[in-house]
Amino acid sequence: MNPQELTSLLRDVAAGNISCETAQAVLAGNENKDLTLDTWRQERTNVGEVVYGQGKTLEQIRASLAELGRHHPVLATKISTAHGQELKNLFPNGCLWEEARLFCLGADLLAADPKAPDSEVLIVTAGSSDLPVAREALGTARFLGLGAHLVSDVGVAGLHRLDPHLPSLRQARVIIAVAGMEGALPSVLGGLLKAPIIAVPTSTGYGANFAGLTPLLAMLNSCAPGVGVVNIDNGFGAAVLAKKILARQE
Amino acid sequence: MNPQELTSLLRDVAAGNISCETAQAVLAGNENKDLTLDTWRQERTNVGEVVYGQGKTLEQIRASLAELGRHHPVLATKISTAHGQELKNLFPNGCLWEEARLFCLGADLLAADPKAPDSEVLIVTAGSSDLPVAREALGTARFLGLGAHLVSDVGVAGLHRLDPHLPSLRQARVIIAVAGMEGALPSVLGGLLKAPIIAVPTSTGYGANFAGLTPLLAMLNSCAPGVGVVNIDNGFGAAVLAKKILARQE
Amino acid sequence: MNPQELTSLLRDVAAGNISCETAQAVLAGNENKDLTLDTWRQERTNVGEVVYGQGKTLEQIRASLAELGRHHPVLATKISTAHGQELKNLFPNGCLWEEARLFCLGADLLAADPKAPDSEVLIVTAGSSDLPVAREALGTARFLGLGAHLVSDVGVAGLHRLDPHLPSLRQARVIIAVAGMEGALPSVLGGLLKAPIIAVPTSTGYGANFAGLTPLLAMLNSCAPGVGVVNIDNGFGAAVLAKKILARQE
Amino acid sequence: MNPQELTSLLRDVAAGNISCETAQAVLAGNENKDLTLDTWRQERTNVGEVVYGQGKTLEQIRASLAELGRHHPVLATKISTAHGQELKNLFPNGCLWEEARLFCLGADLLAADPKAPDSEVLIVTAGSSDLPVAREALGTARFLGLGAHLVSDVGVAGLHRLDPHLPSLRQARVIIAVAGMEGALPSVLGGLLKAPIIAVPTSTGYGANFAGLTPLLAMLNSCAPGVGVVNIDNGFGAAVLAKKILARQE
Amino acid sequence: MNPQELTSLLRDVAAGNISCETAQAVLAGNENKDLTLDTWRQERTNVGEVVYGQGKTLEQIRASLAELGRHHPVLATKISTAHGQELKNLFPNGCLWEEARLFCLGADLLAADPKAPDSEVLIVTAGSSDLPVAREALGTARFLGLGAHLVSDVGVAGLHRLDPHLPSLRQARVIIAVAGMEGALPSVLGGLLKAPIIAVPTSTGYGANFAGLTPLLAMLNSCAPGVGVVNIDNGFGAAVLAKKILARQE
Amino acid sequence: MNPQELTSLLRDVAAGNISCETAQAVLAGNENKDLTLDTWRQERTNVGEVVYGQGKTLEQIRASLAELGRHHPVLATKISTAHGQELKNLFPNGCLWEEARLFCLGADLLAADPKAPDSEVLIVTAGSSDLPVAREALGTARFLGLGAHLVSDVGVAGLHRLDPHLPSLRQARVIIAVAGMEGALPSVLGGLLKAPIIAVPTSTGYGANFAGLTPLLAMLNSCAPGVGVVNIDNGFGAAVLAKKILARQE
Amino acid sequence: MNPQELTSLLRDVAAGNISCETAQAVLAGNENKDLTLDTWRQERTNVGEVVYGQGKTLEQIRASLAELGRHHPVLATKISTAHGQELKNLFPNGCLWEEARLFCLGADLLAADPKAPDSEVLIVTAGSSDLPVAREALGTARFLGLGAHLVSDVGVAGLHRLDPHLPSLRQARVIIAVAGMEGALPSVLGGLLKAPIIAVPTSTGYGANFAGLTPLLAMLNSCAPGVGVVNIDNGFGAAVLAKKILARQE
Amino acid sequence: MNPQELTSLLRDVAAGNISCETAQAVLAGNENKDLTLDTWRQERTNVGEVVYGQGKTLEQIRASLAELGRHHPVLATKISTAHGQELKNLFPNGCLWEEARLFCLGADLLAADPKAPDSEVLIVTAGSSDLPVAREALGTARFLGLGAHLVSDVGVAGLHRLDPHLPSLRQARVIIAVAGMEGALPSVLGGLLKAPIIAVPTSTGYGANFAGLTPLLAMLNSCAPGVGVVNIDNGFGAAVLAKKILARQE
Repeated sequence: MNPQELTSLLRDVAAGNISCETAQAVLAGNENKDLTLDTWRQERTNVGEVVYGQGKTLEQIRASLAELGRHHPVLATKISTAHGQELKNLFPNGCLWEEARLFCLGADLLAADPKAPDSEVLIVTAGSSDLPVAREALGTARFLGLGAHLVSDVGVAGLHRLDPHLPSLRQARVIIAVAGMEGALPSVLGGLLKAPIIAVPTSTGYGANFAGLTPLLAMLNSCAPGVGVVNIDNGFGAAVLAKKILARQE
Repeated sequence: MNPQELTSLLRDVAAGNISCETAQAVLAGNENKDLTLDTWRQERTNVGEVVYGQGKTLEQIRASLAELGRHHPVLATKISTAHGQELKNLFPNGCLWEEARLFCLGADLLAADPKAPDSEVLIVTAGSSDLPVAREALGTARFLGLGAHLVSDVGVAGLHRLDPHLPSLRQARVIIAVAGMEGALPSVLGGLLKAPIIAVPTSTGYGANFAGLTPLLAMLNSCAPGVGVVNIDNGFGAAVLAKKILARQE
Repeated sequence: MNPQELTSLLRDVAAGNISCETAQAVLAGNENKDLTLDTWRQERTNVGEVVYGQGKTLEQIRASLAELGRHHPVLATKISTAHGQELKNLFPNGCLWEEARLFCLGADLLAADPKAPDSEVLIVTAGSSDLPVAREALGTARFLGLGAHLVSDVGVAGLHRLDPHLPSLRQARVIIAVAGMEGALPSVLGGLLKAPIIAVPTSTGYGANFAGLTPLLAMLNSCAPGVGVVNIDNGFGAAVLAKKILARQE
Repeated sequence: MNPQELTSLLRDVAAGNISCETAQAVLAGNENKDLTLDTWRQERTNVGEVVYGQGKTLEQIRASLAELGRHHPVLATKISTAHGQELKNLFPNGCLWEEARLFCLGADLLAADPKAPDSEVLIVTAGSSDLPVAREALGTARFLGLGAHLVSDVGVAGLHRLDPHLPSLRQARVIIAVAGMEGALPSVLGGLLKAPIIAVPTSTGYGANFAGLTPLLAMLNSCAPGVGVVNIDNGFGAAVLAKKILARQE
Repeated sequence: MNPQELTSLLRDVAAGNISCETAQAVLAGNENKDLTLDTWRQERTNVGEVVYGQGKTLEQIRASLAELGRHHPVLATKISTAHGQELKNLFPNGCLWEEARLFCLGADLLAADPKAPDSEVLIVTAGSSDLPVAREALGTARFLGLGAHLVSDVGVAGLHRLDPHLPSLRQARVIIAVAGMEGALPSVLGGLLKAPIIAVPTSTGYGANFAGLTPLLAMLNSCAPGVGVVNIDNGFGAAVLAKKILARQE
Repeated sequence: MNPQELTSLLRDVAAGNISCETAQAVLAGNENKDLTLDTWRQERTNVGEVVYGQGKTLEQIRASLAELGRHHPVLATKISTAHGQELKNLFPNGCLWEEARLFCLGADLLAADPKAPDSEVLIVTAGSSDLPVAREALGTARFLGLGAHLVSDVGVAGLHRLDPHLPSLRQARVIIAVAGMEGALPSVLGGLLKAPIIAVPTSTGYGANFAGLTPLLAMLNSCAPGVGVVNIDNGFGAAVLAKKILARQE
Repeated sequence: MNPQELTSLLRDVAAGNISCETAQAVLAGNENKDLTLDTWRQERTNVGEVVYGQGKTLEQIRASLAELGRHHPVLATKISTAHGQELKNLFPNGCLWEEARLFCLGADLLAADPKAPDSEVLIVTAGSSDLPVAREALGTARFLGLGAHLVSDVGVAGLHRLDPHLPSLRQARVIIAVAGMEGALPSVLGGLLKAPIIAVPTSTGYGANFAGLTPLLAMLNSCAPGVGVVNIDNGFGAAVLAKKILARQE
Repeated sequence: MNPQELTSLLRDVAAGNISCETAQAVLAGNENKDLTLDTWRQERTNVGEVVYGQGKTLEQIRASLAELGRHHPVLATKISTAHGQELKNLFPNGCLWEEARLFCLGADLLAADPKAPDSEVLIVTAGSSDLPVAREALGTARFLGLGAHLVSDVGVAGLHRLDPHLPSLRQARVIIAVAGMEGALPSVLGGLLKAPIIAVPTSTGYGANFAGLTPLLAMLNSCAPGVGVVNIDNGFGAAVLAKKILARQE
């Protein structure tokens, strides 16, 4: 444990974020350090441990990033605007994508993949309100080394907008369909395409939408089979599933 | 009160369907007869009183049909299979459409409207499991004197199946879209057509469909505006709304 | 793309609202511009594309308004107070109706229709808490060229308040009934009137109201048939359905 | 314990309805008999213990009736059709009201109260499907010695049907309003009358009615204050509340 | 319309709270003024119209108070802290009870009723977190002229705390039981007392309490019959029901 | 594998209960037998594997009982009436407790524990409708070797019925409180006693009880802390938790 | 249309399953036959149209099988026991797997794939109650030509049972994890394996399981990312998604 | 009542926190003081009255702490950050643990128990987002005099992290398992350990987590029996249950 880490630990104790006995254990021999962070998850599952930022203190996020970032690139999701700016200060080399609520060390979330013509993952949104979630999927896919592209605003209220994209939709190896409101886009795509569809409901909508419950239920009940659904607003999980599907193919 | 009605009343009392004091009141002067049946509803609302059959005894249904049927044709909905057969015995001139769970006096639920080419109401279903509800709408529309037609099995898992029907869809003055599962059909139609869309969710589906809750929520959240939703499995209500829309136009 | 639009685009990129590859695509040839905006929706469905403002950035709303507003009047809904003021600054000729959360270009949301005596759409509210939603319906109806009027505060706790309005209620061609709490108004109107009833539940209420779920369910279960229901607080959708009903009649 | 009771006890043990150690305790000295039955509840609360029949075995119901019936009249509610017939056989002097699902010893559920003109409780239903619940209220009210009357089928789809009943509605000291579907009747009555309104939602309806949830929520959100709500289909509880209200007045 | 009212009206129009055509109508002849306010509700129902403050603008509340307050005392409920202070400024003679969220003209919400020994309504809370709702009931009861008293903090976790209050509980003519969490208090009281119990669930609690849903359901399922339930946090409605019960007795 | 087991296996295959490849694997070397049954669970967790009978075929239950019963006593829960009788035929030495829906080999579910005065677990029910679940707990406790006793019908509608049981309630080391309807009993007991309370909600009730959801929520929100809740109708789980608590103490 | 089909059609009309006008259309020229059945779905999506058997009449299922079976093998799902036997009579060459509720023409659902050592899809269940759904997945996978295997009863209550299966779990290219109750199995597998996990919640459980809602929610919230969820009890959909994933890899 | 208390009382009245008649009663003789605070709860139930801080004013919390703190140590839970700081000012000797939302008088929440090697209660969290709730349990356990320890971040996505803790898990006499998201940790521990498991769902998660509903349901449906569940985020209740379990053992 270097001096900076010690400082950080003590600040945690002072702030009430870490109880005394945990600090004692850490100082006595770091014995539970390996347990707290799952450093060989990537080896087991193709995707390393990621820092889930929601409901955590800045210090918790910082400590996890610092530790995991020693060995390989590391991603943090659901980062608030305030935390994002502070992380950028703490890790000037890190990459912040504010609207996607992503921050990472050791990778570039914004650089389009050079493998673009051989598009592997196509992320499609029903409306422009779904973009934050779609961008979480896009950034995660790039972080995981996939060739990913985004097509937005092709929901069922104007299906003709799908037409110019049909060639790239048919070429993609995995489709991530992101939709709020009635969540009908995955059903339409599932009836048109051979690729597996990963459906991401979003909390876009109001009233009887119930913060994404409606598109979640709709996607689970898709009359076009072959649709796998992830949690509401879970663009991250969709990209991980895409990674696992594509990794298997190699 | 004729002898047959008296017999019927007394059987009701014996069967516990009518309490003694109600029977007394009826015998003393029929004073609440007009209240029980809303005989001038047609005049007020364009659609006369209809007998809702669910949860009622056969005798309750019979008595309402007999009373309302004195003046003009009368329809009963949500008739069970067993009650349907018994009503057919009690009213040999009545018309029973078993799968639609409809029974009526003074009209023919099964005869296609001769005005067919000038189709007014087009009822469209997503799948063949939605047919009972669609037929409830079709039969009610015929009972109300509308020119109504049925197109089935054009759900979003195979949207190309809509193509041959586009001319009649564009010609219809009101669309009734009947769908279970994810309930996406009204959204697709709402994005393609000028006519008002009446959406009827059905209880077709299982698991996270929750007996029609999923298509109900989806239809209420349609990203294509101009969709009016009725209760789950309420083909009857959809046809009444169509009647009110079209009656206004004359 | 003019300089102002370029500036706006670059600000979006800087702010993280638009990913780099989208900006590249836009600069390379605007090729997905027509897809994003559904410019011939009006032709297909009688109602052109509308900008749904909730959950969008000011820049997203601005860009959509600018693009759609080139060709014909354009409406934006669910505009927050802060965005409304900024849009008024950006488009000084635009019309802002703050309480209705509407903003539009090319039309006057506040000018009463001169066709008033030949009232076509009558919007009725149960209480004065329902006014914001009723005004969304009223403004949208005016935007769509309908003759629309508003009667407020005639809920079922004092039904006699309906009496002086019965002549105009009977004359209206479409009724939009807006109610929160127990949502009983559409049932009462549906039992009195020939016109089709469009029911709009509102989120007025507390406790077991569940933000509009109670009136939504009540309206779907109306014992007076012929009621079409839209989403909670969806005054906009109710006006579009009215437009589609009335357009058919011409 | 007489021989018949002993036989009954042993049959219970054999049938698995009573565990061995309970039987031992009973035989050893009846020490928990007073506990099982709350024989002085009437004294405390104005209403004696009642046998809730749902989910109980015939023997459980029989034993409770026999024990409680020693001292004063006793009522059993939610009696199934099969159990009702068997109870009539076991207690030939008992009174069975099948449609109300009531059985009692020592009182007449069907005899109209001679005090009729001085009507105290008026039970009002929205539709005839609500009659079983309304009769449970009526029979319970009679059992409790109240002057109770029933008016049915005056729901909001045809409010004029209320008019001829307004004098008796205004004269009643307590109103019990029974309604399924959208459950609007208590709101209407609450806006018209001085008497307290006890609202009973029923499970009449289908689809998004959710077995009475819709009228329950509607009644809890009544815009007319002064409405007390009981459980779905709980006609019994409504009558007990009426009894407690009226007993206070004496 | 006096100058001050005119000013107020015009400010409403400027603020978007009142649409132009409504203002025109008002100025043209005040023809819908009587409709908006239900001035003879007290005569019909024993309780005059009350101003529901939630979700309304200050101006809406002020205008209603001013109009209704011309004829008799008037109460406003669910007043926010900010609005409360402003109403106090606007109506210096008005009475504000901040924690009860009540404001009234023409009555004193805080003065204990001199009739105290002849207590009529006893309001009982399970915990001190339920006090705001209990005070809404208490203030409303005083406004309606009832003799009302409050006993707090006697929930089921320490039932012996009820003992010293049993004499006054047995003497009260109506009990209002206010409880959050598991909402068991009305069941306990219902098993002990002859008086009718009005149960008010509160939103006190967290997690699986679901903002009052748990005590609401518990109260509806009370195993002690004779409990009438009102909406979550609806102390006002409970007091009105108490008023209607007691008014009948005179 | 003995001949009888072979017959049983083949019947399973014929009946479609076991797929062919599983049968092949079993015949090839029994390699997944140890996995299917968790034979050392007792050693790890103090409670051996139990056969959950709901939704299983008779053959599935029989095979599990036969296999697990080789080594030590074995219990099956949620046994239907029909399956119970057939199991009694297949295992004549087995013990069936029909109302508790339990069947076991190698133990006596009905024999009261001789250790009774040193009562360890006291099972308390609110009403007699809760007895089947209470008996599941009682039988399971006996199967696990605990001294368990049952007190029924002491719910909150007549709390005085608790009084004679207070000595044994205070002496018990674990309390299992079983209640449906509003589920208030655990709160009352938790406020009176030192022992840990295990709360079991039952599906007793109707309407807004929602098949046990109401008492489940009430128990989770108990204002008396120290209550651990198990699933609705899960008398078995409550007894296992009691066993784990008491085993720790030895 | 051959004579047998004509007979079948007419029987449908007589039974009320097909309305007269549809029969007329069919007889006039079969014009909507191609629409009803989506015969080129396999070409578009890799998986041909499948007959969903729930809620359909035997005749509806028979007609769809006969038509679709002309061209290539066809599968029907969610077949009731009664319909299964009748289909076996109607199509003696068909293959019925009763417990999986599957019936098909032109394929063998029960024959293990010879490619077994190169296992592609591994279906894993938490308990033996999950077997019917797992078999629906297994049979569908075989129908689609995949090499699929089933491992059952390795739920989280005894995780060591997973150990002997780890080699095949690591070798599988897609995992289908089937679980009811708390649905934790996919999370455990997702933390151990590289392959994509398709999670299928089942309706196994009772009480607060809510017929599969609990495992559905648990799977959507898996802390191990890379899990795609399908509807409750939807073994069929899981196998289709597996097919789409694996087809992409070829 | 000393002068400071009088001041405090009067400030309460001025602030509207205490109604006038309550103040009168208090001044007249303090007669309901013993009722408000349940000072002998500790004697009855092993755990004294605790101040529940949520939704209370600072003054309410202060008064309760002052009164209860006269006799023995007292704990307050769910203290907001703002109130925590003010309480620290008011009671300089008090102990504030901000992240656990605890404040107490007369005990040290942060000092690790010297009895550590003889660990009695082991608190285990699935992730670091669950720490605030785990700390509420830890601080409460310390307040109650238990030897308690915390192990965090051993959720099912990386089960190997449990391994180094197995010795202390097997040694603990009670396990408190704290988990959000899918809530699988208690099931895994229940299948491995002899100790009773107290499961605490947390509101960690988003989307279809529904603020802790998902882990709550999962824990109630645990396939490993012997798990007692407390309310969402109720670390306090879990520690009280642990206290009651361990107190019995002495």
